[in-house]
Amino acid sequence: MVNLKGDERLDFLLAEELRIIQSPSVFAFSLDAVLLARFVYVPIQKGKLIDLCSGNGVIPLFLSTRTKGTIVGVEIQERLHDMAVRSIQYNQLDDRLSMIHGDIKEMPKILGHAKFDVVTCNPPYFRTPATREINENEHLAIARHEILCTLEDAIKSASQLVRQGGKVAFVHRPGRLIDMIELMRKYRLEPKRIQLVYPKAGKEANTLLVEAIKDGSPDLKIENPLIVYNEENEYTPEIREILYGKE
Amino acid sequence: MVNLKGDERLDFLLAEELRIIQSPSVFAFSLDAVLLARFVYVPIQKGKLIDLCSGNGVIPLFLSTRTKGTIVGVEIQERLHDMAVRSIQYNQLDDRLSMIHGDIKEMPKILGHAKFDVVTCNPPYFRTPATREINENEHLAIARHEILCTLEDAIKSASQLVRQGGKVAFVHRPGRLIDMIELMRKYRLEPKRIQLVYPKAGKEANTLLVEAIKDGSPDLKIENPLIVYNEENEYTPEIREILYGKE
Repeated sequence: MVNLKGDERLDFLLAEELRIIQSPSVFAFSLDAVLLARFVYVPIQKGKLIDLCSGNGVIPLFLSTRTKGTIVGVEIQERLHDMAVRSIQYNQLDDRLSMIHGDIKEMPKILGHAKFDVVTCNPPYFRTPATREINENEHLAIARHEILCTLEDAIKSASQLVRQGGKVAFVHRPGRLIDMIELMRKYRLEPKRIQLVYPKAGKEANTLLVEAIKDGSPDLKIENPLIVYNEENEYTPEIREILYGKE
Repeated sequence: MVNLKGDERLDFLLAEELRIIQSPSVFAFSLDAVLLARFVYVPIQKGKLIDLCSGNGVIPLFLSTRTKGTIVGVEIQERLHDMAVRSIQYNQLDDRLSMIHGDIKEMPKILGHAKFDVVTCNPPYFRTPATREINENEHLAIARHEILCTLEDAIKSASQLVRQGGKVAFVHRPGRLIDMIELMRKYRLEPKRIQLVYPKAGKEANTLLVEAIKDGSPDLKIENPLIVYNEENEYTPEIREILYGKE
Protein backbone atom coordinates (compact mmCIF):
# COMPACT_ATOMS: atom_id res chain seq x y z
CA MET A 1 0.00 0.00 0.00
CA VAL A 2 1.22 3.48 -0.79
CA ASN A 3 -0.28 6.86 -0.05
CA LEU A 4 -0.10 8.95 -3.25
CA LYS A 5 -0.71 12.70 -2.86
CA GLY A 6 -2.08 15.10 -5.51
CA ASP A 7 -0.83 14.26 -8.99
CA GLU A 8 1.80 11.78 -7.77
CA ARG A 9 2.39 8.56 -9.69
CA LEU A 10 4.07 5.33 -8.64
CA ASP A 11 6.53 4.85 -11.52
CA PHE A 12 8.80 1.93 -12.30
CA LEU A 13 12.56 2.25 -11.78
CA LEU A 14 14.84 -0.33 -13.41
CA ALA A 15 12.05 -2.14 -15.22
CA GLU A 16 9.93 -3.77 -12.52
CA GLU A 17 12.60 -4.06 -9.86
CA LEU A 18 11.71 -0.87 -7.96
CA ARG A 19 8.91 1.68 -7.80
CA ILE A 20 9.34 5.41 -7.21
CA ILE A 21 6.85 8.15 -6.38
CA GLN A 22 7.01 11.08 -8.78
CA SER A 23 4.88 14.08 -9.62
CA PRO A 24 4.96 16.05 -12.85
CA SER A 25 4.24 19.29 -11.00
CA VAL A 26 6.66 18.76 -8.10
CA PHE A 27 9.57 16.56 -9.14
CA ALA A 28 10.36 13.74 -11.55
CA PHE A 29 13.83 12.26 -11.78
CA SER A 30 16.00 12.78 -14.85
CA LEU A 31 18.17 10.43 -16.86
CA ASP A 32 21.17 12.30 -15.38
CA ALA A 33 20.42 11.01 -11.89
CA VAL A 34 20.21 7.44 -13.15
CA LEU A 35 23.47 7.84 -15.08
CA LEU A 36 25.23 9.12 -11.95
CA ALA A 37 23.90 6.25 -9.83
CA ARG A 38 25.30 3.79 -12.35
CA PHE A 39 28.58 5.67 -13.00
CA VAL A 40 29.92 5.90 -9.45
CA TYR A 41 32.08 3.08 -8.10
CA VAL A 42 30.44 1.58 -5.01
CA PRO A 43 31.52 -1.02 -2.46
CA ILE A 44 29.35 -4.08 -3.10
CA GLN A 45 29.10 -5.86 0.25
CA LYS A 46 29.07 -2.99 2.74
CA GLY A 47 29.88 0.68 3.16
CA LYS A 48 28.32 4.02 4.03
CA LEU A 49 26.95 6.06 1.15
CA ILE A 50 25.31 9.48 1.13
CA ASP A 51 23.43 11.27 -1.62
CA LEU A 52 23.16 15.07 -1.48
CA CYS A 53 20.33 17.05 -3.14
CA SER A 54 18.47 13.77 -3.26
CA GLY A 55 15.09 14.96 -4.61
CA ASN A 56 12.58 12.09 -4.61
CA GLY A 57 15.36 9.65 -3.67
CA VAL A 58 16.04 8.24 -7.12
CA ILE A 59 19.80 7.89 -6.57
CA PRO A 60 19.57 6.06 -3.20
CA LEU A 61 16.89 3.77 -4.65
CA PHE A 62 18.96 2.99 -7.72
CA LEU A 63 22.16 2.55 -5.68
CA SER A 64 20.37 0.03 -3.43
CA THR A 65 20.52 -2.42 -6.35
CA ARG A 66 24.32 -2.06 -6.62
CA THR A 67 25.44 -2.22 -2.97
CA LYS A 68 24.43 -3.88 0.28
CA GLY A 69 25.77 -0.87 2.22
CA THR A 70 23.65 1.79 3.93
CA ILE A 71 22.55 4.86 1.99
CA VAL A 72 21.44 8.22 3.37
CA GLY A 73 19.68 10.77 1.17
CA VAL A 74 19.59 14.47 2.08
CA GLU A 75 16.85 16.71 0.70
CA ILE A 76 15.99 20.24 1.78
CA GLN A 77 12.47 20.34 0.31
CA GLU A 78 9.99 18.74 2.68
CA ARG A 79 7.59 17.76 -0.10
CA LEU A 80 10.34 15.86 -2.00
CA HIS A 81 11.80 14.37 1.18
CA ASP A 82 8.34 13.02 1.96
CA MET A 83 8.06 11.40 -1.49
CA ALA A 84 11.47 9.74 -1.02
CA VAL A 85 10.52 8.41 2.44
CA ARG A 86 7.34 6.83 1.08
CA SER A 87 9.19 5.29 -1.88
CA ILE A 88 11.78 3.74 0.45
CA GLN A 89 8.98 2.30 2.60
CA TYR A 90 7.08 0.98 -0.43
CA ASN A 91 10.20 -0.83 -1.66
CA GLN A 92 10.82 -2.18 1.87
CA LEU A 93 14.32 -0.74 1.93
CA ASP A 94 13.99 1.02 5.33
CA ASP A 95 16.63 -1.26 6.84
CA ARG A 96 19.38 0.22 4.63
CA LEU A 97 18.03 3.46 3.18
CA SER A 98 17.09 6.59 5.11
CA MET A 99 16.30 10.20 4.30
CA ILE A 100 17.28 13.37 6.16
CA HIS A 101 15.21 16.52 5.72
CA GLY A 102 17.81 19.26 5.92
CA ASP A 103 20.42 21.51 4.34
CA ILE A 104 23.45 19.75 2.89
CA LYS A 105 25.68 22.55 4.22
CA GLU A 106 24.74 21.45 7.79
CA MET A 107 25.41 17.73 7.25
CA PRO A 108 29.14 17.61 8.12
CA LYS A 109 28.31 19.23 11.48
CA ILE A 110 25.34 16.89 12.07
CA LEU A 111 26.72 13.62 10.66
CA GLY A 112 30.42 14.17 11.29
CA HIS A 113 33.44 14.64 9.04
CA ALA A 114 35.00 11.84 6.96
CA LYS A 115 32.29 9.34 7.85
CA PHE A 116 31.27 8.20 4.35
CA ASP A 117 32.86 5.94 1.73
CA VAL A 118 30.90 7.42 -1.17
CA VAL A 119 29.14 10.74 -1.73
CA THR A 120 26.93 11.34 -4.77
CA CYS A 121 25.28 14.58 -5.85
CA ASN A 122 23.06 15.71 -8.73
CA PRO A 123 22.97 19.41 -7.80
CA PRO A 124 20.78 22.20 -9.21
CA TYR A 125 22.28 23.04 -12.62
CA PHE A 126 21.38 26.66 -13.17
CA ARG A 127 23.01 29.70 -11.66
CA THR A 128 20.45 31.79 -9.84
CA PRO A 129 18.90 34.25 -12.32
CA ALA A 130 17.03 37.46 -11.58
CA THR A 131 14.05 36.66 -9.37
CA ARG A 132 11.39 37.06 -12.03
CA GLU A 133 13.14 34.59 -14.37
CA ILE A 134 13.12 31.81 -11.82
CA ASN A 135 10.62 29.04 -12.35
CA GLU A 136 7.43 30.13 -10.61
CA ASN A 137 6.94 26.65 -9.28
CA GLU A 138 8.97 26.83 -6.09
CA HIS A 139 9.67 23.07 -5.92
CA LEU A 140 11.07 22.97 -9.44
CA ALA A 141 12.94 26.26 -8.97
CA ILE A 142 14.80 25.02 -5.89
CA ALA A 143 15.59 21.70 -7.56
CA ARG A 144 16.93 23.36 -10.72
CA HIS A 145 18.50 26.65 -9.64
CA GLU A 146 21.36 27.38 -7.27
CA ILE A 147 18.99 29.06 -4.84
CA LEU A 148 19.63 27.10 -1.65
CA CYS A 149 22.80 25.32 -2.77
CA THR A 150 25.61 26.39 -5.10
CA LEU A 151 28.04 23.99 -6.75
CA GLU A 152 30.69 25.13 -4.28
CA ASP A 153 28.38 24.40 -1.31
CA ALA A 154 27.79 20.89 -2.62
CA ILE A 155 31.47 20.15 -3.33
CA LYS A 156 32.56 21.54 0.02
CA SER A 157 30.00 19.43 1.94
CA ALA A 158 30.87 16.34 -0.09
CA SER A 159 34.56 16.81 0.66
CA GLN A 160 33.90 17.15 4.38
CA LEU A 161 31.60 14.12 4.51
CA VAL A 162 33.83 11.69 2.59
CA ARG A 163 36.68 9.80 4.21
CA GLN A 164 40.22 10.07 2.89
CA GLY A 165 40.45 7.80 -0.16
CA GLY A 166 36.65 7.75 -0.47
CA LYS A 167 34.80 8.65 -3.65
CA VAL A 168 32.73 11.69 -4.57
CA ALA A 169 30.70 11.66 -7.80
CA PHE A 170 28.81 14.54 -9.38
CA VAL A 171 26.71 14.98 -12.49
CA HIS A 172 26.45 18.39 -14.17
CA ARG A 173 26.40 20.17 -17.52
CA PRO A 174 29.67 20.08 -19.54
CA GLY A 175 29.79 23.89 -19.42
CA ARG A 176 30.65 23.59 -15.72
CA LEU A 177 33.57 21.19 -16.23
CA ILE A 178 36.19 23.81 -15.45
CA ASP A 179 34.37 25.08 -12.33
CA MET A 180 33.90 21.47 -11.25
CA ILE A 181 37.61 20.66 -11.56
CA GLU A 182 38.76 23.87 -9.89
CA LEU A 183 36.31 23.55 -6.99
CA MET A 184 37.07 19.87 -6.45
CA ARG A 185 40.79 20.56 -6.27
CA LYS A 186 40.12 23.48 -3.91
CA TYR A 187 38.48 20.99 -1.53
CA ARG A 188 41.11 18.23 -1.92
CA LEU A 189 38.98 16.10 -4.24
CA GLU A 190 41.13 14.85 -7.14
CA PRO A 191 39.11 14.09 -10.30
CA LYS A 192 39.98 10.54 -11.44
CA ARG A 193 37.23 9.51 -13.88
CA ILE A 194 35.15 11.57 -16.26
CA GLN A 195 32.42 10.29 -18.56
CA LEU A 196 30.65 12.37 -21.17
CA VAL A 197 27.11 11.76 -22.33
CA TYR A 198 26.20 12.76 -25.89
CA PRO A 199 22.53 12.90 -26.96
CA LYS A 200 23.52 11.52 -30.38
CA ALA A 201 26.73 10.38 -32.06
CA GLY A 202 27.29 13.64 -33.97
CA LYS A 203 26.20 16.04 -31.19
CA GLU A 204 27.91 18.01 -28.44
CA ALA A 205 27.98 16.43 -24.98
CA ASN A 206 25.08 17.53 -22.75
CA THR A 207 25.96 15.75 -19.51
CA LEU A 208 29.16 15.40 -17.54
CA LEU A 209 29.90 12.72 -14.93
CA VAL A 210 32.91 13.21 -12.64
CA GLU A 211 34.27 10.96 -9.91
CA ALA A 212 36.97 12.23 -7.56
CA ILE A 213 38.94 10.69 -4.70
CA LYS A 214 39.60 12.61 -1.49
CA ASP A 215 43.34 13.33 -1.40
CA GLY A 216 43.83 11.11 -4.47
CA SER A 217 46.89 11.37 -6.71
CA PRO A 218 46.49 13.20 -10.04
CA ASP A 219 45.66 10.66 -12.76
CA LEU A 220 42.56 11.27 -14.81
CA LYS A 221 40.90 8.97 -17.27
CA ILE A 222 38.02 9.74 -19.59
CA GLU A 223 35.70 6.77 -19.91
CA ASN A 224 33.99 5.54 -23.08
CA PRO A 225 31.41 7.93 -24.55
CA LEU A 226 27.76 7.31 -23.66
CA ILE A 227 25.44 7.96 -26.60
CA VAL A 228 21.77 8.26 -25.58
CA TYR A 229 19.81 8.04 -28.85
CA ASN A 230 20.51 6.29 -32.14
CA GLU A 231 19.75 7.81 -35.56
CA GLU A 232 16.11 6.71 -35.22
CA ASN A 233 15.76 8.60 -31.89
CA GLU A 234 15.46 5.35 -29.94
CA TYR A 235 17.52 4.69 -26.81
CA THR A 236 20.80 2.95 -27.65
CA PRO A 237 21.26 -0.56 -26.18
CA GLU A 238 23.59 0.69 -23.42
CA ILE A 239 21.09 3.33 -22.25
CA ARG A 240 18.24 0.81 -22.38
CA GLU A 241 20.27 -1.48 -20.17
CA ILE A 242 21.01 1.34 -17.71
CA LEU A 243 17.35 2.36 -17.51
CA TYR A 244 15.65 -1.02 -17.61
CA GLY A 245 18.39 -3.47 -16.59
CA LYS A 246 19.55 -6.46 -18.67
CA GLU A 247 16.73 -7.65 -20.87
CA MET B 1 62.35 17.44 -57.40
CA VAL B 2 62.95 16.67 -53.76
CA ASN B 3 66.14 15.79 -51.93
CA LEU B 4 65.36 12.81 -49.65
CA LYS B 5 67.96 11.98 -46.98
CA GLY B 6 68.64 8.59 -45.37
CA ASP B 7 65.44 6.60 -44.86
CA GLU B 8 63.15 9.52 -45.61
CA ARG B 9 60.00 8.96 -47.65
CA LEU B 10 57.77 11.39 -49.52
CA ASP B 11 54.35 10.45 -48.11
CA PHE B 12 50.92 11.64 -49.14
CA LEU B 13 48.98 14.00 -46.87
CA LEU B 14 45.24 14.45 -47.47
CA ALA B 15 45.07 11.86 -50.24
CA GLU B 16 47.06 13.29 -53.13
CA GLU B 17 46.66 16.95 -52.29
CA LEU B 18 49.98 17.36 -50.45
CA ARG B 19 53.22 15.47 -49.95
CA ILE B 20 55.25 15.38 -46.72
CA ILE B 21 58.78 14.15 -45.98
CA GLN B 22 58.90 11.62 -43.14
CA SER B 23 61.38 9.16 -41.74
CA PRO B 24 60.57 6.14 -39.60
CA SER B 25 63.81 6.59 -37.62
CA VAL B 26 63.59 10.37 -37.14
CA PHE B 27 59.98 11.53 -37.19
CA ALA B 28 56.64 10.59 -38.69
CA PHE B 29 53.50 12.57 -37.93
CA SER B 30 50.68 11.12 -35.87
CA LEU B 31 46.92 11.13 -36.28
CA ASP B 32 46.82 13.54 -33.33
CA ALA B 33 48.57 16.28 -35.31
CA VAL B 34 46.10 15.91 -38.16
CA LEU B 35 43.16 15.97 -35.74
CA LEU B 36 44.46 19.19 -34.17
CA ALA B 37 44.96 20.84 -37.58
CA ARG B 38 41.36 20.06 -38.44
CA PHE B 39 39.89 20.87 -34.98
CA VAL B 40 41.14 24.44 -34.59
CA TYR B 41 39.01 27.30 -35.89
CA VAL B 42 40.98 29.28 -38.49
CA PRO B 43 40.33 32.49 -40.40
CA ILE B 44 39.73 31.47 -44.04
CA GLN B 45 40.81 34.44 -46.13
CA LYS B 46 43.75 35.85 -44.18
CA GLY B 47 45.42 35.85 -40.77
CA LYS B 48 48.67 35.02 -39.01
CA LEU B 49 49.02 31.49 -37.67
CA ILE B 50 51.88 29.88 -35.78
CA ASP B 51 52.49 26.22 -34.95
CA LEU B 52 54.77 25.39 -32.00
CA CYS B 53 56.71 22.10 -31.72
CA SER B 54 56.09 21.70 -35.42
CA GLY B 55 58.12 18.54 -36.10
CA ASN B 56 58.20 17.82 -39.84
CA GLY B 57 55.64 20.58 -40.44
CA VAL B 58 52.54 18.41 -40.70
CA ILE B 59 50.26 20.95 -38.99
CA PRO B 60 51.32 23.98 -41.12
CA LEU B 61 51.00 21.86 -44.27
CA PHE B 62 47.56 20.61 -43.30
CA LEU B 63 46.39 24.09 -42.19
CA SER B 64 47.47 25.52 -45.59
CA THR B 65 44.45 23.73 -47.09
CA ARG B 66 42.06 25.46 -44.64
CA THR B 67 43.28 29.08 -44.70
CA LYS B 68 44.86 31.55 -47.09
CA GLY B 69 46.69 33.20 -44.18
CA THR B 70 50.40 32.91 -43.43
CA ILE B 71 51.66 30.08 -41.22
CA VAL B 72 54.92 29.90 -39.30
CA GLY B 73 56.18 26.61 -37.86
CA VAL B 74 58.70 26.53 -35.01
CA GLU B 75 60.89 23.45 -34.48
CA ILE B 76 63.91 23.11 -32.24
CA GLN B 77 65.40 20.01 -33.88
CA GLU B 78 67.45 20.97 -36.93
CA ARG B 79 66.90 17.61 -38.64
CA LEU B 80 63.08 17.94 -38.39
CA HIS B 81 63.12 21.63 -39.28
CA ASP B 82 65.04 20.71 -42.41
CA MET B 83 62.43 18.09 -43.38
CA ALA B 84 59.65 20.64 -42.93
CA VAL B 85 61.47 23.25 -45.07
CA ARG B 86 61.91 20.78 -47.92
CA SER B 87 58.26 19.67 -47.71
CA ILE B 88 57.08 23.29 -47.89
CA GLN B 89 59.29 23.85 -50.93
CA TYR B 90 58.11 20.64 -52.60
CA ASN B 91 54.47 21.70 -52.19
CA GLN B 92 55.32 25.21 -53.46
CA LEU B 93 53.90 26.82 -50.36
CA ASP B 94 56.94 29.06 -49.62
CA ASP B 95 54.86 32.19 -50.25
CA ARG B 96 52.67 31.54 -47.19
CA LEU B 97 54.46 28.94 -45.06
CA SER B 98 57.79 29.34 -43.30
CA MET B 99 59.77 27.49 -40.66
CA ILE B 100 61.87 28.86 -37.81
CA HIS B 101 64.61 26.72 -36.30
CA GLY B 102 64.52 27.67 -32.64
CA ASP B 103 63.18 27.31 -29.12
CA ILE B 104 59.49 28.13 -28.66
CA LYS B 105 60.34 29.80 -25.33
CA GLU B 106 62.31 32.45 -27.28
CA MET B 107 59.62 33.17 -29.87
CA PRO B 108 57.66 35.90 -28.03
CA LYS B 109 60.92 37.87 -27.68
CA ILE B 110 61.89 37.26 -31.33
CA LEU B 111 58.49 37.54 -33.03
CA GLY B 112 56.77 39.91 -30.62
CA HIS B 113 53.84 39.59 -28.23
CA ALA B 114 50.20 39.33 -29.34
CA LYS B 115 51.09 39.12 -33.04
CA PHE B 116 49.19 35.96 -34.01
CA ASP B 117 45.52 35.16 -34.60
CA VAL B 118 45.93 31.43 -34.03
CA VAL B 119 48.52 29.31 -32.21
CA THR B 120 48.56 25.50 -32.49
CA CYS B 121 50.74 23.05 -30.58
CA ASN B 122 51.16 19.27 -30.48
CA PRO B 123 53.69 19.20 -27.62
CA PRO B 124 55.79 16.28 -26.34
CA TYR B 125 53.38 14.11 -24.32
CA PHE B 126 55.57 12.40 -21.78
CA ARG B 127 57.00 13.85 -18.59
CA THR B 128 60.76 13.52 -18.58
CA PRO B 129 61.66 10.15 -17.05
CA ALA B 130 64.98 9.08 -15.56
CA THR B 131 67.68 9.45 -18.23
CA ARG B 132 68.09 5.77 -18.95
CA GLU B 133 64.38 5.30 -19.65
CA ILE B 134 64.31 7.95 -22.34
CA ASN B 135 64.16 6.79 -25.93
CA GLU B 136 67.74 6.26 -27.05
CA ASN B 137 66.94 7.83 -30.38
CA GLU B 138 67.53 11.51 -29.57
CA HIS B 139 65.18 12.83 -32.27
CA LEU B 140 62.27 10.70 -31.07
CA ALA B 141 63.10 11.38 -27.42
CA ILE B 142 62.95 15.18 -27.86
CA ALA B 143 59.76 14.94 -29.89
CA ARG B 144 58.04 12.72 -27.32
CA HIS B 145 59.37 13.74 -23.91
CA GLU B 146 59.27 17.06 -22.09
CA ILE B 147 63.03 17.43 -22.38
CA LEU B 148 63.34 20.79 -24.11
CA CYS B 149 59.75 21.96 -23.63
CA THR B 150 57.24 21.31 -20.85
CA LEU B 151 53.49 21.78 -21.23
CA GLU B 152 53.77 24.96 -19.19
CA ASP B 153 56.51 26.33 -21.50
CA ALA B 154 54.30 25.70 -24.51
CA ILE B 155 51.15 27.23 -22.98
CA LYS B 156 53.07 30.26 -21.73
CA SER B 157 54.64 30.91 -25.15
CA ALA B 158 51.31 30.39 -26.91
CA SER B 159 49.62 32.87 -24.59
CA GLN B 160 52.30 35.48 -25.23
CA LEU B 161 52.22 35.01 -29.01
CA VAL B 162 48.43 35.14 -29.47
CA ARG B 163 46.52 38.41 -29.69
CA GLN B 164 43.68 39.17 -27.29
CA GLY B 165 40.63 37.29 -28.57
CA GLY B 166 42.83 35.00 -30.68
CA LYS B 167 42.73 31.21 -30.48
CA VAL B 168 45.16 28.69 -29.01
CA ALA B 169 44.64 24.98 -29.69
CA PHE B 170 46.50 22.06 -28.13
CA VAL B 171 46.33 18.29 -28.47
CA HIS B 172 47.39 16.06 -25.58
CA ARG B 173 46.51 12.92 -23.66
CA PRO B 174 43.25 13.02 -21.61
CA GLY B 175 45.28 12.38 -18.45
CA ARG B 176 46.63 15.93 -18.78
CA LEU B 177 43.19 17.58 -19.03
CA ILE B 178 43.36 19.06 -15.56
CA ASP B 179 46.92 20.37 -16.00
CA MET B 180 45.90 21.79 -19.37
CA ILE B 181 42.93 23.67 -17.93
CA GLU B 182 44.84 24.98 -14.92
CA LEU B 183 47.85 26.10 -16.97
CA MET B 184 45.69 27.73 -19.64
CA ARG B 185 43.79 29.73 -17.03
CA LYS B 186 47.08 30.68 -15.36
CA TYR B 187 48.14 32.28 -18.66
CA ARG B 188 44.78 33.96 -19.42
CA LEU B 189 43.69 31.37 -21.98
CA GLU B 190 40.05 30.42 -21.39
CA PRO B 191 39.17 26.91 -22.65
CA LYS B 192 36.11 27.21 -24.91
CA ARG B 193 35.94 23.96 -26.92
CA ILE B 194 37.03 20.44 -26.03
CA GLN B 195 36.82 17.38 -28.25
CA LEU B 196 37.61 13.86 -27.15
CA VAL B 197 38.89 11.14 -29.43
CA TYR B 198 38.03 7.53 -28.59
CA PRO B 199 39.85 4.66 -30.34
CA LYS B 200 36.58 2.70 -30.42
CA ALA B 201 32.99 3.28 -29.31
CA GLY B 202 33.34 1.33 -26.06
CA LYS B 203 36.85 2.49 -25.11
CA GLU B 204 38.34 5.24 -22.97
CA ALA B 205 39.37 8.45 -24.74
CA ASN B 206 43.03 8.50 -25.76
CA THR B 207 43.32 12.00 -27.22
CA LEU B 208 42.19 15.40 -26.02
CA LEU B 209 41.74 18.49 -28.19
CA VAL B 210 41.35 21.87 -26.47
CA GLU B 211 40.81 25.31 -27.97
CA ALA B 212 41.07 28.40 -25.78
CA ILE B 213 40.58 32.13 -26.37
CA LYS B 214 42.98 34.70 -24.91
CA ASP B 215 41.03 36.62 -22.27
CA GLY B 216 37.81 34.83 -23.36
CA SER B 217 34.76 34.59 -21.12
CA PRO B 218 34.14 31.25 -19.35
CA ASP B 219 31.80 29.14 -21.47
CA LEU B 220 32.97 25.65 -22.37
CA LYS B 221 31.43 23.25 -24.81
CA ILE B 222 32.39 19.65 -25.43
CA GLU B 223 32.10 18.79 -29.10
CA ASN B 224 30.77 15.54 -30.59
CA PRO B 225 32.88 12.45 -29.84
CA LEU B 226 35.37 11.35 -32.50
CA ILE B 227 35.56 7.57 -32.82
CA VAL B 228 38.62 6.38 -34.76
CA TYR B 229 37.94 2.71 -35.54
CA ASN B 230 34.71 0.76 -36.09
CA GLU B 231 34.14 -2.76 -34.77
CA GLU B 232 36.06 -4.20 -37.74
CA ASN B 233 39.14 -2.06 -36.89
CA GLU B 234 38.67 0.08 -39.99
CA TYR B 235 38.75 3.87 -39.84
CA THR B 236 35.25 5.31 -39.34
CA PRO B 237 33.89 7.51 -42.18
CA GLU B 238 34.62 10.74 -40.27
CA ILE B 239 38.26 9.80 -39.67
CA ARG B 240 38.69 8.70 -43.30
CA GLU B 241 37.38 12.08 -44.37
CA ILE B 242 39.80 13.89 -42.03
CA LEU B 243 42.78 11.88 -43.25
CA TYR B 244 42.02 11.60 -46.94
CA GLY B 245 39.54 14.42 -47.56
CA LYS B 246 36.06 14.03 -49.07
CA GLU B 247 35.99 10.99 -51.30
